[in-house]
Amino acid sequence: MKLFSRITTTDRTPIFFGNDTFSSIDRLVYNMRPSDIFILVDPNTREHCLPHLIEKTRCLENARVIETGEGESSKTLANAEKLWNELIASGANRSSLMINLGGGVVSDLGGFVAAGYQRGISYINIPTSLVGQADASIGGKTAVNLGNIKNQVGFFYPARAVFIMPLFLKTLPEKHLRSGLAEIIKTALISDANLWRKILRNPVRRLLQKPVESRFWFDLIAGTVKYKNKVVVQDYRECKLRKVLNFGHTVGHALEAFSHIRPGNLLLHGEAVAAGMICASYLSHLKAGLAVEELDAIKTYLAKGFPVIPVEISSIPAVMQLMMHDKKEHKGELQFTLISKPGHPLMNVSCENREILEAIEFYNSLSGNNYPANQ
Amino acid sequence: MKLFSRITTTDRTPIFFGNDTFSSIDRLVYNMRPSDIFILVDPNTREHCLPHLIEKTRCLENARVIETGEGESSKTLANAEKLWNELIASGANRSSLMINLGGGVVSDLGGFVAAGYQRGISYINIPTSLVGQADASIGGKTAVNLGNIKNQVGFFYPARAVFIMPLFLKTLPEKHLRSGLAEIIKTALISDANLWRKILRNPVRRLLQKPVESRFWFDLIAGTVKYKNKVVVQDYRECKLRKVLNFGHTVGHALEAFSHIRPGNLLLHGEAVAAGMICASYLSHLKAGLAVEELDAIKTYLAKGFPVIPVEISSIPAVMQLMMHDKKEHKGELQFTLISKPGHPLMNVSCENREILEAIEFYNSLSGNNYPANQ
Repeated sequence: MKLFSRITTTDRTPIFFGNDTFSSIDRLVYNMRPSDIFILVDPNTREHCLPHLIEKTRCLENARVIETGEGESSKTLANAEKLWNELIASGANRSSLMINLGGGVVSDLGGFVAAGYQRGISYINIPTSLVGQADASIGGKTAVNLGNIKNQVGFFYPARAVFIMPLFLKTLPEKHLRSGLAEIIKTALISDANLWRKILRNPVRRLLQKPVESRFWFDLIAGTVKYKNKVVVQDYRECKLRKVLNFGHTVGHALEAFSHIRPGNLLLHGEAVAAGMICASYLSHLKAGLAVEELDAIKTYLAKGFPVIPVEISSIPAVMQLMMHDKKEHKGELQFTLISKPGHPLMNVSCENREILEAIEFYNSLSGNNYPANQ
Repeated sequence: MKLFSRITTTDRTPIFFGNDTFSSIDRLVYNMRPSDIFILVDPNTREHCLPHLIEKTRCLENARVIETGEGESSKTLANAEKLWNELIASGANRSSLMINLGGGVVSDLGGFVAAGYQRGISYINIPTSLVGQADASIGGKTAVNLGNIKNQVGFFYPARAVFIMPLFLKTLPEKHLRSGLAEIIKTALISDANLWRKILRNPVRRLLQKPVESRFWFDLIAGTVKYKNKVVVQDYRECKLRKVLNFGHTVGHALEAFSHIRPGNLLLHGEAVAAGMICASYLSHLKAGLAVEELDAIKTYLAKGFPVIPVEISSIPAVMQLMMHDKKEHKGELQFTLISKPGHPLMNVSCENREILEAIEFYNSLSGNNYPANQ
């Protein structure tokens, strides 16, 4: 079984897929002839992934390692400035290369730092989380958060290459694997009814027990990457089609950001997206004709597989505010990506506040008798 | 005499030229249909230029005005963050439009803020300084300084349009007009021996007495803009040809940055570039065969027209350090754009520290018997 493939995107970012692509890293870097190489890690990837990467490649022997904190709270302008100053202190110039070894936070922040340093140096993404491999590392979106607002400042700036190696997922805590699964489920819901049925037959708990290096996971990740890539190629700057990928993200981003204001129930990106997809599916039923049976199946699957943390009534104004600041707002109205049935997305559906509140109530009503009790 | 022309660049930024292009602003904005408009000003342009702009256009009636400080020291990441937060507070979204009304600092900072806000909103440059009109507003380079290093963080992000209206130069202090003249002289030296001869016949003092709305200035500015545009179109990302525009800027940027570390002799951009061109001409004589008579003519003209502020020996290490951090360094060697004769540039000429020091000594030796004594 050969688990290797290569996809080339129109923004000229080749995506290498498989556990044996280290020699491709060497070849690519050799051809780029960077003056020096910086590997951006977080404490986890420094410990669990970096040694393996260094051991398996030749070109990274003398690379300098720079570290950032882990988690969404590290994606700040202040951290970007700190990294820029480290690059200056190390004499990085326009021919320097940056390698982002980590999850979505590392690739978002590292891409942002590379995009801005001396008006842009080259970077390579080696995503080590499932969110990173299935979603965040692909498509050239880089960003930091501003205050509580996710990805408010950033640039479209493509990586020189992305290397997706499922082996790095082995060290991932289950919670993070589950988080990445949410992006895969999202892709299935907007693009592929058969994939959704296949997922539906496997409860989250069972999925998480399959070895991450198995054919099953490989197909899930590769399918998600290929679909995302197809969308990105058609609409790099998210003017139209790329918005399809926002399914579940309007409410999701707000819940994720809100969980950072009120520590305690800190939500991972995928956990927030799972909650967002329940709300978006409810809105899809309300506004886009999604059948009640489909809504039921989605809600049951997600509520069993992901934590349901009710949004308290007192928090609702703040969550609504965060949604309005998100980038999915146009002329004062919130715009949603919805589905009329699995695999059939609808973009730019305006929803009224009243409807969004109803969707949140629907989500709230699922708490108690599902995850984590059933898990 | 019709002082109007329009140049279109391949990054699709039309450049409108002339004092009567207000209706073109209206037309452009009408077609863009932004959800809201923000005009970025500094205290000077708020007072001297904004009322005229508002009066002459229809589309800017309800625009919100946001202000930044004046001068190079305002081009910071902290100021960009402040502006991003103002945009958030005003509900700016991806369909918002930003208009940068000011000199190079306003267009660099405003372009940077527009480039980063929600991964990029549209912006228009209306340069009001001569540096801005002849140089800074064209070519899609946006940036802020990091610590003492000029333009260390930024992006290539093209404006939707640039409107060059010489009438705004009327309110400019002579010192700032002189600063802009340096960029025009630079363009003449690298691109057009005839233009250089024409300038040479008019000492700076006489040039500055000509009305800014005269044909003479119009031709100077238009010629500079057209040349810069031609270069930018061929090499948007400064991989090769665009480096030609760096003539005088390697030493110039370092002197400008240094003058901000040691207040007192605060240099304007063009004043620093004039000093840098004297050094670059000396290096051109040393390394590129520039005839001694040409070197003499350049040095005499510039030293009479611009302040010569010797670089003290104790400051030289810091200035050299700043040069090394500038973007013109490749694999540890400083790279200069030089000229073999006026109109004949040479790029990527490596110079040793010893040679650069000689050039600075040459510049230092010009002080005392020239500007400002002769002015």
